[in-house]
Amino acid sequence: MSADLGDAPREECVLIGSERLHAFVARILLALEVGPGAADTVARVLVDADLRGIDSHGVGNLWRYVKGLREGWINAQPNYRLTADVPAGMSVDADRGLGHVVAVWAMERAIERAANVGVGVVAVSNSNHFGIAGYYARLALRRDMIGIALTNSQALVAPTFGREAMLGTNPIAVAAPSESGAAFVLDMATSVAAQGRVAVKGRLGEPIPNGWAVDGSGHLTVDTRQVLTDLARGVGALLPLGGLGEQHGGHKGYGLALAVDILSGVLAGAGYADATHLGSDEEAVRTNIGHLLVALDIGAFRPVVAFKRDMSDLLRRIRDSKRLDGRPRIFIHGEKESEEKQRRLRMGIPLHRQVVEDLEQIASILGLDDRLVAVTG
Amino acid sequence: MSADLGDAPREECVLIGSERLHAFVARILLALEVGPGAADTVARVLVDADLRGIDSHGVGNLWRYVKGLREGWINAQPNYRLTADVPAGMSVDADRGLGHVVAVWAMERAIERAANVGVGVVAVSNSNHFGIAGYYARLALRRDMIGIALTNSQALVAPTFGREAMLGTNPIAVAAPSESGAAFVLDMATSVAAQGRVAVKGRLGEPIPNGWAVDGSGHLTVDTRQVLTDLARGVGALLPLGGLGEQHGGHKGYGLALAVDILSGVLAGAGYADATHLGSDEEAVRTNIGHLLVALDIGAFRPVVAFKRDMSDLLRRIRDSKRLDGRPRIFIHGEKESEEKQRRLRMGIPLHRQVVEDLEQIASILGLDDRLVAVTG
Repeated sequence: MSADLGDAPREECVLIGSERLHAFVARILLALEVGPGAADTVARVLVDADLRGIDSHGVGNLWRYVKGLREGWINAQPNYRLTADVPAGMSVDADRGLGHVVAVWAMERAIERAANVGVGVVAVSNSNHFGIAGYYARLALRRDMIGIALTNSQALVAPTFGREAMLGTNPIAVAAPSESGAAFVLDMATSVAAQGRVAVKGRLGEPIPNGWAVDGSGHLTVDTRQVLTDLARGVGALLPLGGLGEQHGGHKGYGLALAVDILSGVLAGAGYADATHLGSDEEAVRTNIGHLLVALDIGAFRPVVAFKRDMSDLLRRIRDSKRLDGRPRIFIHGEKESEEKQRRLRMGIPLHRQVVEDLEQIASILGLDDRLVAVTG
Repeated sequence: MSADLGDAPREECVLIGSERLHAFVARILLALEVGPGAADTVARVLVDADLRGIDSHGVGNLWRYVKGLREGWINAQPNYRLTADVPAGMSVDADRGLGHVVAVWAMERAIERAANVGVGVVAVSNSNHFGIAGYYARLALRRDMIGIALTNSQALVAPTFGREAMLGTNPIAVAAPSESGAAFVLDMATSVAAQGRVAVKGRLGEPIPNGWAVDGSGHLTVDTRQVLTDLARGVGALLPLGGLGEQHGGHKGYGLALAVDILSGVLAGAGYADATHLGSDEEAVRTNIGHLLVALDIGAFRPVVAFKRDMSDLLRRIRDSKRLDGRPRIFIHGEKESEEKQRRLRMGIPLHRQVVEDLEQIASILGLDDRLVAVTG
């Protein structure tokens, strides 16, 4: 279950096949001198988000990577450098490369280490926004491991009793396999709602619910456009999970965001707090995002078959428990997305017209004569 | 910062010195055939919670351990058994022993493994309630490590769209050191509020805030006594962090509780969901709580001095950020508790009269002629 399900009305959308979308995105990245393997990886991660209905983290974000590559604060051809190396993990400097690519690389290393000693932890510094955290956590599933992915990000969230954005929406993703093959995949921003979800409300012209954000003077606001404008200017903030103050646990969401900042930012030697994105005299922006990728080899702790059997029983017990009136179903995290992916693989991905126009404009600026759709209508 | 700060009016409290309280609790456990080292450990963990103002997890809970020891579902003299052993961790069957004792033992093993290979993860099954998770996470600090402690517990929390308690309040604790010595110590239930915090409201005769709990038919309720009675009967439920439904992220708190259940329960081979406490023909209760203790050796990932310098800078930036009107201070997690500990070490621990009476009654039942206070007034 994601907080970031898109829900644009169908009439404002264009259906695009996932393979066509993947190829279009990869060509744009190739035109920006990203290597073929890396371009394929980024396209795969972005289109996977769109397939799963996590529209806030899909190809609608391509502009941000294109901007970074064109302005030079994302390095199209990075050289990763190990800064620490122990049996259960390592630290890697990503040389300002694309976050998606180094995160896949880092999770593969974490899995190797976990296969050797039971647990693998890889800390990444000098990276960039990596899209959906859940993608990297899920990479562990095929090896019968539990995957965990954390990242910090641009400051958008205020600490409890604060009104200034000091922490990222710092997501936590955890993936664990079950007997049936239906995995548990938690992928959550530690704020009440991720910025992308506010952006989706903006595209729909809807107010945000009261309790998602505060304005620059610290008052709750439901004005979606104002929140988006403010956040872009570094004013106001999203609220941590649990909301304003302590009564409903806002200090817990704040604490989770801070824990993720420590584990993915400080431990890696990356930026942290409001210093993941720095302006400088030389460049408009210098980013230093950190990630933490963790793999736990289930078989190192108990027989895999017993773990999966208990997982299936756990998930079944929860699905079958008593429901609130009028609620037809209790969801397990990842189920909605997995079902949406099957649907969108068949039907195509409903991209908002604005996203399609933006993608085609990017291609046009880069001198590509590709069109995503023959006529966008 | 804790969700579980006690706030009983002073006139209903008796001030007890921490050493006197420790000795009293340890004598009760010794009378129940707990060994001297184990009795000392349990007393230390419980009194530490009271010193830090986390009254919901302090000696006011002793009755539950006494009950378990007397009824035989807690084993006073357990033999731990390793069920898995790899370089980066192990699994241990706690033989139904006291959770506090095995959790200290397990975190010490996690620290040893982390010192060897960078990371240590110890999974514990067949254990019992272990009190404050933060205690075990903090054990890593003295070794310049990050400590993480997770546990599952008796089912009290409903999944999103459910009305039946299927998951524990499953806490997450994370501790990380800084340059100044003031550590970050997050210790949070993954529900809006822990059961102990509802119990504190009950002792104060106050309603709980709307959004903490639902009754057996799934409706929000503020009736503290009813909630406590219902939960004891297995009816109704506490709500996950983020509250009812998905609009404010209730599915995220539910997801965190489920992730903790998987990592501390299923991975260890312990109970999970509503099966951490089982009735049987033989015994009234059989508990099979699981814990996960994790140590990350900071020096394995980057120089400790650089990590601590950045931690202090991170925490300072947040403390010094712009505050909401009327809010004198932005707290870092663990600060309130650390300051309260200094105060209570000097002034004594203000124990609610009811807690004092319960403790003295336990001593009396066990035939001890110890009194906690000469005259409880």
